[in-house]
Amino acid sequence: MTTSFLSQILKEIKPLDEKAVEAARVRQDQLTKPRGSLGRLEELSVKIAGITGKAMPRIEQKAIVTMAGDHGVTAEGVSAYPQEVTAQMVYNFLRGGAGINVLARHIGARVVVVDMGVAANLEPHPWLVSKKIAFGTSNMAKGPAMSREQALRAIDGGIELINEEVTKGLDIVGVGDMGIGNTTASSAICAVVTGEPVAKVTGRGTGIGDEQWALKVKVIETALALNKPDPKDAIDVLSKVGGFELGGIAGVILGAAAQRRPVVLDGFIAGAAALIATKLCPTVKDYLIAAHVSAEVGHRVILDYLGLKPLLDLGMRLGEGTGAALAIFIVEVAVKALAEMATFADAGVSERLD
Amino acid sequence: MTTSFLSQILKEIKPLDEKAVEAARVRQDQLTKPRGSLGRLEELSVKIAGITGKAMPRIEQKAIVTMAGDHGVTAEGVSAYPQEVTAQMVYNFLRGGAGINVLARHIGARVVVVDMGVAANLEPHPWLVSKKIAFGTSNMAKGPAMSREQALRAIDGGIELINEEVTKGLDIVGVGDMGIGNTTASSAICAVVTGEPVAKVTGRGTGIGDEQWALKVKVIETALALNKPDPKDAIDVLSKVGGFELGGIAGVILGAAAQRRPVVLDGFIAGAAALIATKLCPTVKDYLIAAHVSAEVGHRVILDYLGLKPLLDLGMRLGEGTGAALAIFIVEVAVKALAEMATFADAGVSERLD
Repeated sequence: MTTSFLSQILKEIKPLDEKAVEAARVRQDQLTKPRGSLGRLEELSVKIAGITGKAMPRIEQKAIVTMAGDHGVTAEGVSAYPQEVTAQMVYNFLRGGAGINVLARHIGARVVVVDMGVAANLEPHPWLVSKKIAFGTSNMAKGPAMSREQALRAIDGGIELINEEVTKGLDIVGVGDMGIGNTTASSAICAVVTGEPVAKVTGRGTGIGDEQWALKVKVIETALALNKPDPKDAIDVLSKVGGFELGGIAGVILGAAAQRRPVVLDGFIAGAAALIATKLCPTVKDYLIAAHVSAEVGHRVILDYLGLKPLLDLGMRLGEGTGAALAIFIVEVAVKALAEMATFADAGVSERLD
Repeated sequence: MTTSFLSQILKEIKPLDEKAVEAARVRQDQLTKPRGSLGRLEELSVKIAGITGKAMPRIEQKAIVTMAGDHGVTAEGVSAYPQEVTAQMVYNFLRGGAGINVLARHIGARVVVVDMGVAANLEPHPWLVSKKIAFGTSNMAKGPAMSREQALRAIDGGIELINEEVTKGLDIVGVGDMGIGNTTASSAICAVVTGEPVAKVTGRGTGIGDEQWALKVKVIETALALNKPDPKDAIDVLSKVGGFELGGIAGVILGAAAQRRPVVLDGFIAGAAALIATKLCPTVKDYLIAAHVSAEVGHRVILDYLGLKPLLDLGMRLGEGTGAALAIFIVEVAVKALAEMATFADAGVSERLD
């Protein structure tokens, strides 16, 4: 079912470190605050302890991996923007002018822009990594989006990429996307994996109107009827109705979990990639943090299916990793509170009366 | 009804700058993202433009003002912690070991610790500002918490403080609190101003059990029956059932609005102070940003009454300004996105097809 590269990674993914979890819990209850009063920050710090295996984890090196790819299905008229915007936005990322650049600078994270399959010959650039599988997927309304072999190569590309980033130094990774047409692919994946009707998991993407939305639903239904992706076979789903950047993100998720690095999921597209990754290895769920719930309607369905509670709800739907950047800030402060706050004993503060 | 100091400030508070609001809106729609796709970050940037009167505002100098005071009502046994914790936590703030210190360092904000009325002689310290009114309030279950003159002096103290901070350089302020017993005072204020029953707006504070909660409700009901605060007279409410730190926070809010500085409200106590401030001057509402919704049950009631939608919901209930610190980070990134993102024209990115 899988290449030897992917099979190897799947074996390396282990459960959370229960000792580190317990040590972090004990310390939280000694800090100068009423127990539990830092709410989800406390839970997050404990989770990061379990992921990293460190009782007092530190987050210093941060990266946002923004994976770009094009989609043959845009030929059906499912997006408010033309396909060339994918490549144009990649150049915008490389010049530092996009939303993700501003947000990543603010949290001190590097942005790693990855060409997984943009439909253009992109100029080389020091920040641009090429793991290109092809010049965009095929139109899933006419046949499979990619071959099974391409789907596996896309996942391998993501695993390679995260291994390279870990070598550079990496304590946490946020995963985001750029790809005109990729909410169409993500809605298709979501419908297949969760079993929900297409109309329930299909949203407005970059901002389409009612008529175009109805068309988008019909295109996805056609693609599913034609390709019959098998919900029990994640690689089949990815190849029939997915995208290269979706495969790449799934690879980053799997590789990061194998390396015990927390993965912060951006929005709907990262969520759809997480459906693929967790189908391949359910243990991966423990390594995931849901940054936010996007305005894209299917995102809530994915989060419920994965059992993840988003940290933020700010009505965002930009993608690129922007939600992940905000959430990384929250995770970072959560582990800092665990490490840097004084204990009742240190500070000479009286404990509870009862 | 008010001193000349307060009356003067109330005259200086002006509506939002509509020109700056419009200019920020126009720019948002030219940035390289689908319109509205940064959700509440876009709204926030526009609001900050209106508050500051600048089409492209900048946030560089940030402060968290943490106001401390003691409460005579603790004699009734309403808190899980002894009164001396207020002073002990002030020392913890000054040593940098409390939650607010860690969070403020993370966002690059200074913490201004203010003794509004702690029931101890606090040692002088470079970070500690004294605006002390008295050594704790009187027990509101036996009579008014303070005199009308003390209530006015507490508000004046907050106005003075924010003026001093603006002189040092200040682009945004978060307001927080420390005071054993102050959720009791805040629930009383909330019940009077919003007209809701005491039981509906009284929570667990630092973490009391069912029996102590029932006592807390009874104590507040007794205080309201005895003192009969007039909901139409904010100074009367503050003096009968308030606290010195609550008056101080109300003063900071009013003074900041007069100086066109955005005010980020922390949790339930800051919210109760905002009820006082907005009763004195309804225009102040436009200068307020609700950081989060706290786990303290009355907080949602206050936010609904003020018409404020919280940015975060992380189950926090620590106070000190911790929620405000997280929200200041969000506000900062919102104005950076407005200022630093490329426009479609700058970046050569194609616009929508329709």
